[in-house]
Amino acid sequence: MIQIVAKHFVKPEHVESYLKLAGKLVAKTRQLDAGCIQYALFQDLKDSSILTIIEQWESQDALDQHMAAAHFKEMVPKLGEFCEKPGEINLYRPVEAEQ
Amino acid sequence: MIQIVAKHFVKPEHVESYLKLAGKLVAKTRQLDAGCIQYALFQDLKDSSILTIIEQWESQDALDQHMAAAHFKEMVPKLGEFCEKPGEINLYRPVEAEQ
Repeated sequence: MIQIVAKHFVKPEHVESYLKLAGKLVAKTRQLDAGCIQYALFQDLKDSSILTIIEQWESQDALDQHMAAAHFKEMVPKLGEFCEKPGEINLYRPVEAEQ
Repeated sequence: MIQIVAKHFVKPEHVESYLKLAGKLVAKTRQLDAGCIQYALFQDLKDSSILTIIEQWESQDALDQHMAAAHFKEMVPKLGEFCEKPGEINLYRPVEAEQ
């Protein structure tokens, strides 16, 4: 399993546009992309211009296919244009808790 | 629901100690803290010194109680001592996807 936290710093004047387009990306990804366990959009409670997508994928292969999908390639560059700087994207492995 | 991403930058020589203690915090929190939907530890795939806890709480009240719990007050300051700089903690609200 691969866990992703993709944090974006959106220009304040483009937050509404970002939310609308990112909502479409979330819906398309959930509908179409195999191996997607979680894909959800969150807005920071203190700074509404911080928009973060939290994702879980079954495998690197599923993630690669998501990033090659038409909706990803169409929408992600547009989302980038709404941002004031590059996002902070981390890919994680789960660490098992002590029993 | 409150979603939290708590990203920590751990001193490389203390990663093993951090993992051990954070694993205990995860286990105690899951066992004892009411209103906890998710509480899980992740390690960055490229930089093993980035350790992130992803959390979901039913309410601000549940989160407040977690932060007042004995295990939180005992372990979190110790975890902080293993870090090379302050963590990046974001509290989020979920954004509904377009249907």
